[in-house]
Amino acid sequence: MHKLSSTDTLFLLNESRETPMHVGGVHLFTLPEGADEIEFLSDLGELLHDDAALSFPFGQRLRESRLPSCPPIRWEEDPKLDMEYHVRHSALPRPGRYRELFALVSRLHSTLLDRSRPLWEFNLIEGLQNRQFATYSKVHHAAIDGAMGMHLANSMYSSDPDSRAEHSPFSVRSFKRYQHKLAELHADANDETPTADEISSVNYMVSEALGSAVNVGKAIGQSLEAYLKDGKLRMPFSEVPHTPFNQRLSGARRFVAQSWSFDRVYAVGKALDGTLNDTVLAMSAGALRKYLKTHAELPTVSLKAMAPMSLRPAGDVTSSNAVAAITVDLATNVADAELRYRTIQESMREGRQLLQQLTRREIDFYTMIMQAPAIMVGLMGVEHKLPAYSTVISNVPGPRKQMYWNGASLNGMYPASAINHGTGLNITMVSNNKSLDFGIVACLDSMPLVQRLIDYLEDALVELEELAGIRPQQRRGRSEQPA
Amino acid sequence: MHKLSSTDTLFLLNESRETPMHVGGVHLFTLPEGADEIEFLSDLGELLHDDAALSFPFGQRLRESRLPSCPPIRWEEDPKLDMEYHVRHSALPRPGRYRELFALVSRLHSTLLDRSRPLWEFNLIEGLQNRQFATYSKVHHAAIDGAMGMHLANSMYSSDPDSRAEHSPFSVRSFKRYQHKLAELHADANDETPTADEISSVNYMVSEALGSAVNVGKAIGQSLEAYLKDGKLRMPFSEVPHTPFNQRLSGARRFVAQSWSFDRVYAVGKALDGTLNDTVLAMSAGALRKYLKTHAELPTVSLKAMAPMSLRPAGDVTSSNAVAAITVDLATNVADAELRYRTIQESMREGRQLLQQLTRREIDFYTMIMQAPAIMVGLMGVEHKLPAYSTVISNVPGPRKQMYWNGASLNGMYPASAINHGTGLNITMVSNNKSLDFGIVACLDSMPLVQRLIDYLEDALVELEELAGIRPQQRRGRSEQPA
Repeated sequence: MHKLSSTDTLFLLNESRETPMHVGGVHLFTLPEGADEIEFLSDLGELLHDDAALSFPFGQRLRESRLPSCPPIRWEEDPKLDMEYHVRHSALPRPGRYRELFALVSRLHSTLLDRSRPLWEFNLIEGLQNRQFATYSKVHHAAIDGAMGMHLANSMYSSDPDSRAEHSPFSVRSFKRYQHKLAELHADANDETPTADEISSVNYMVSEALGSAVNVGKAIGQSLEAYLKDGKLRMPFSEVPHTPFNQRLSGARRFVAQSWSFDRVYAVGKALDGTLNDTVLAMSAGALRKYLKTHAELPTVSLKAMAPMSLRPAGDVTSSNAVAAITVDLATNVADAELRYRTIQESMREGRQLLQQLTRREIDFYTMIMQAPAIMVGLMGVEHKLPAYSTVISNVPGPRKQMYWNGASLNGMYPASAINHGTGLNITMVSNNKSLDFGIVACLDSMPLVQRLIDYLEDALVELEELAGIRPQQRRGRSEQPA
Repeated sequence: MHKLSSTDTLFLLNESRETPMHVGGVHLFTLPEGADEIEFLSDLGELLHDDAALSFPFGQRLRESRLPSCPPIRWEEDPKLDMEYHVRHSALPRPGRYRELFALVSRLHSTLLDRSRPLWEFNLIEGLQNRQFATYSKVHHAAIDGAMGMHLANSMYSSDPDSRAEHSPFSVRSFKRYQHKLAELHADANDETPTADEISSVNYMVSEALGSAVNVGKAIGQSLEAYLKDGKLRMPFSEVPHTPFNQRLSGARRFVAQSWSFDRVYAVGKALDGTLNDTVLAMSAGALRKYLKTHAELPTVSLKAMAPMSLRPAGDVTSSNAVAAITVDLATNVADAELRYRTIQESMREGRQLLQQLTRREIDFYTMIMQAPAIMVGLMGVEHKLPAYSTVISNVPGPRKQMYWNGASLNGMYPASAINHGTGLNITMVSNNKSLDFGIVACLDSMPLVQRLIDYLEDALVELEELAGIRPQQRRGRSEQPA
C-alpha cells in the first residue's frame, strides 16, 4: 500500500478550485498511413479501458483518514474502479486546428480531479486536421512527479513503427516491460550528443524521498548554513518583481504549445559555450522581456525563474529523487542579449556549484527549504503578495528517437504543469526526437495574451542565433507544428 | 447592484467539488432545411459572444467581502468580462449519438464554475447525427432559480421559424423584449388545456424574497406551528429509507434524458382524476420501484420525493417567488399501481391543502423551514446520513408551441439540476410543445445504471395507461428522442 509523503500531502492541502494541482500534457500524433481514424482510435480506446492490474497511481485512490479533518496518508486500491470515467473520448469542433485543440485543453486543464477516485484522467481527442489526433492526460501532483510522468509516457511508445501494444499503458505488465527496456535505451543514449546532463533539468523538484518523517524545523536550521555558503546565490522570494502573472489566480487556464528544432537551440548553446538549458532559459528570458515591454510594464528588477535541476549521475536513469531547484536570474532588465545570456549562465552555474558542494542529504534538505516557504506561504493564502519566483522554467528529457504509438508517429509532447497563486506562469519543454516541445500554462486572466510568448520565443531564439554568429537559411522553426 | 439573499449565500457555502451547485440543461435542435452547420453555428456563436449590456447574472461576478472569511453579499459588474471564456464551442466524437452527447454533458455538469467570474457557461455542441445540434448551459444556483432559468430559455426562442435573433440572448435588450411578450403569450396559454396550475410545479423552491434579513431562529418558531397543523403531513427527514442514491456523492455526475408525449401523460391523469403532476410523480415512483427491485433492494419503507410546488395564482406569470416544497410519499413499497397512484395523489393533496391554509408570509417561512434543515445538515457534512428526501421530482412549465432558435426547431429541453449528499437523484421535466422532456441527474457512483430509469419510466407509464383503461396502438414513446 502506497503512502503519501508530506510533500504529496501538501499538494493536496494546497489545492483549490483556483489552483488545481495536477500535471499532464498534450501528445500529438499522425495516424499510420491507410489507417481509418475511427477504427484506430476505437482500438486504442479498448486497450486503454482495460482495468486489469493497473500500475500506481492508476488503480489507487486516496484513503480517507479515520481522524476527522486529517489529510489522507495512504493510497488504497479503488474497489469500484471505473475506466469509463477515467478514459474519455473527446472531439474538436471544426475546423480542428491547433487553436481548437488548445481551447479544449485549456478548459480540461482548468478543472479539478475527483478526489474519491484514482487521481487521473486521460482523453483521446479526435477531429484534428491532417490525419492527426491528440491525447491530453492529467494526473494529480500528489501521485506523480515530472520524471515519473515522462517514464509513463515513454512506456506507452515504441521506436518501432510496427510495434503494437498488447497491454494497457496503465497496466503493471506494460510498466515492468518498460523498466526492462530502460537499461538498453540508456546504453544507446550515452553514445549520442548532447549528454543526459545537458538536458537533465526536470520539473517537480520536491522529492518523495524526504518522506513524512523529516523534521522540518531541524531541516531549516541545517539548510540555512548551506544556504548562506554563497552570498551571491539567488534565493526564492528575494527581488521577485511584480508582473501581471505574479498575482492571485482565477480558476481558468490558458495552454499554448510549440515545437522548436532541437539542433537550432543546441547550436546556440554550443557556439556561446553554454548548455542547452542556458539557451532555453535565455530564450524564455528574451520572450518574457518582450512580452512585458509590449503588453505590460517591464520591471526594472529582473525576473527570477525557478529551474528544477536534476542531480542524477550520468549513468542513473532509475532514481527519480535526485532533483533540486535553482533560482535563476533571468536578467530581463538587461537589453544586451549577450550580457543577458552571461548573467543567466552565471546564475545557473552558481546554483549548480552550490549543489555540487553539498552531500546528497544536504541537497534533500536544501531542496525542501527552497520549496517549504512557497508551500507555507501558499497555505497562508498570501502567495500572490509574496511570490517565490516570477515563473517556473523546466526542461524535461524525453525520447531521443522518433517514437510511435501503435504505429501512429508521435509529433509532439507538450507538457502542461500546475501553476500557483503568485507564480502564475509555467514554461516546460520536453526534448522529443529532433525537437524541443514547449508547453506553456498561464492564468487566463493575468496572461490573456500568453500565445504571444510563442512568437516572442522564436524572436528570442533568432536574437540568440545572431549573437552566436549563426545564420540559418530558414529562421522560422518547425512551422508545421502548433502555433 | 444585485444583492445575494441568505439562500443564495447558502448555495455558495454548501458547494464543494463533490456537490457543484449549478443548474442548467441540454437543448436539442434540428438545423433549418438547407442550412450549413458550420455557418449556422458560427453565426450563433458570434451572437452569443456579444458582451454589450448583459442582463443579470451574465455580466456580474461575486464581489468579495472586505471582511476576511465572510461570504460575498453582493454582485458587481465584471470589469474584464471575457465572453470567450463563457461561451464555448464543443464537439461530439463520432458517431455523434445521444450517448456521446450525454457523456459530454455528464462531464461538463460535474465541474465547478469559476468563482472569480460571472457564474455561467454556455456550450454550443456540434457533431450530432441527423442534422441536429445541442446546447448545454450551466448557471450557479446562487444566481438563478428554475423559473428564471426557464424565462431565460424562452427569451432565446420564437414560435416563428422565420424570426432571427438580433441581440445576444444574454443581453438586457433581449430580456426586455421577452418581458413585453410574456403577457401576450400568457393570454394565449389561458385558452389551452391543461391549465397553468396543473403544470405549475417548479424546481428551486427557496425564494429570494426571504432576503438576508430574515431571522432564521424566529422563523423556525413561527413555522413550527404551521408545520404541526396537520399531523399526517409528510415532513423532510421523516421515514426516508436508505437507497443506493441516498449516500455521500462523488464528484462525478451522470446525465440522461428522454421525451414523452405530453398527451399520453395528460390522458392518464384525466382518466384517473389526477393532475399531470400526480401522473409524472406516479411514473417516477413506478420507475424507481422497478430500479430498486432490479438493481438494489426495495426498501420496505416508501421513498419520499421533494416536489417543488408553485403557489402562483392562475393569471400571474411575472412573480417568481410563490414557490414552496411538498414532501410526497412515492408509495414505492406498494405493488398495486392504483393504490400507489392514490397514495401519491393524497400526499400531494395534503401538502397543497396545508399551503392553501397559510398566508403568503407563512408560506415563505414554511418554505424556508422545509429547506433550512437540509442546508444545516449539509453545512455539518452529515447529510448523507440524514437525507431530507429520497429524490427531487420537479415539473417545470415550458413553451406550449413548437419553438425555434434562429430558424432551428427546438426538439427538446432537458433540465440538469444540482444534487446533494444524501439526495443524489433529481428528476426534472419540462413541458415543451407536445412533449414532456425529462432530464435526470445522478451521481455516477451511487447510480451507475441511471439510464435504466428511462426504460422503467416508459414501463411505468404503460402500467398507468393500462390502469386508466387506455390502450394506445403504439406503446413506446417518442422513440426518435434521446434514450
